[in-house]
Amino acid sequence: MPFKAVVFDAYGTLYDIQSVAAVTEQAFPGHGDIITQIWRIKQLEYTWLRSLMQRYVDFAVVTRDALSYTLRILGLQADAATRDRIIAKYLDLDPYPDARAALAAMKDHRLAILSNGSPAMLDSLVKASGFDAPLDAVISVDARKIFKPSPQAYALIEETLGFTPDEVLFVSSNPWDVCGAKAFGLNVAWIERVTPDAMAAACNKTDLVAPLTLFKALRSQMDELGFAPDYRIAALSELPEIVAKHEP
Amino acid sequence: MPFKAVVFDAYGTLYDIQSVAAVTEQAFPGHGDIITQIWRIKQLEYTWLRSLMQRYVDFAVVTRDALSYTLRILGLQADAATRDRIIAKYLDLDPYPDARAALAAMKDHRLAILSNGSPAMLDSLVKASGFDAPLDAVISVDARKIFKPSPQAYALIEETLGFTPDEVLFVSSNPWDVCGAKAFGLNVAWIERVTPDAMAAACNKTDLVAPLTLFKALRSQMDELGFAPDYRIAALSELPEIVAKHEP
Repeated sequence: MPFKAVVFDAYGTLYDIQSVAAVTEQAFPGHGDIITQIWRIKQLEYTWLRSLMQRYVDFAVVTRDALSYTLRILGLQADAATRDRIIAKYLDLDPYPDARAALAAMKDHRLAILSNGSPAMLDSLVKASGFDAPLDAVISVDARKIFKPSPQAYALIEETLGFTPDEVLFVSSNPWDVCGAKAFGLNVAWIERVTPDAMAAACNKTDLVAPLTLFKALRSQMDELGFAPDYRIAALSELPEIVAKHEP
Repeated sequence: MPFKAVVFDAYGTLYDIQSVAAVTEQAFPGHGDIITQIWRIKQLEYTWLRSLMQRYVDFAVVTRDALSYTLRILGLQADAATRDRIIAKYLDLDPYPDARAALAAMKDHRLAILSNGSPAMLDSLVKASGFDAPLDAVISVDARKIFKPSPQAYALIEETLGFTPDEVLFVSSNPWDVCGAKAFGLNVAWIERVTPDAMAAACNKTDLVAPLTLFKALRSQMDELGFAPDYRIAALSELPEIVAKHEP
């Protein structure tokens, strides 16, 4: 059976969240990497914790709060203009180099984003990258006031596009997102950007582990949550072939 | 109004989870610290993610899964006996040095634990430390099949002890647990074991940040979740005075 739609996670999947490091490094020379890593981890944690606490605020607020935490614990001061400049990068993240071509190659399918991002953040992001043209829909979890991996978030795909989970290929680089989507019943492709061998080599290289390595240790490898992806790919560029194979 | 009960988080609050590092270091010399840190972070993540995914398994399974993840990404092999020996330390964690005296000093109050731990894990832990004597109740979230900071977990205090949230002092060193308890309406004392100055100094000491420092950066400082504790204390030993002041 062919997939009727291909739905993408945004942050870390179509768009490179590590691209904020250039801005954080400019604002705080020598701290760009650690700010970027702690910021991202706390941003994710806050989405999960607020969802569980039933205290939803949108992703723009979570992102700002996570940055506040990060700067505070590092003992860094930032005026409002500096914070605004750092946050603004989230509205204009670099797409992965192969994202545009992959979307173009699958243009005969319905293409969409399902993201934790707020509608305003996603609108900016998609327009800045020009992905508003190939995408048929940009779906924000804000419509349900709960973040992924809640089933209520993934249910928005069918509510918006009209396709059942088994008709959709969901694509994410985030292992927790992959597991959440599988638990919900979607077909899932996982973009595995760091191989297990590279991961183990980085962790064993030195007694002191650099923040970026620890971050990758926490985020890049498939989680032990009782689910596995249907497809493991190394890059977005491998998607069109997978999708083509499922044509009738 | 006096507090009618004092309810403690277990892991990281009454019991020192860092005490597993001795066992992980023995099993994997040179890796004890990083195993301990990644294991704990993934253990917490899995409680939040499984709760959100509505795929609860008990804390013993989560703890074992998080250890599997940790060893896998570090490229470390462990036979079943080694894994069992590491996991077993969770049943016999060292209490903080001041825990016993603090419980004894508050013996005129109802004292309890509310923990993510499974009933069997908590039973072992409490008996091994001899805390079964001072504690009136050991409450596991397993009764509701969802982990903290879900309101359903904190609701177990009233269901078990019969006291409303405003009659209870909840004690935790975990910032996310403090915020969850406050959101639920409990009085909350936060054990702040790492001062902001010590945190900032550790983060700025070196270009490479040691895993333990990064772990503390992620875990030891109050989170930006819209809530603040009623009491900030440095150690359990400060609790009896706070509780005594609330006597009628």
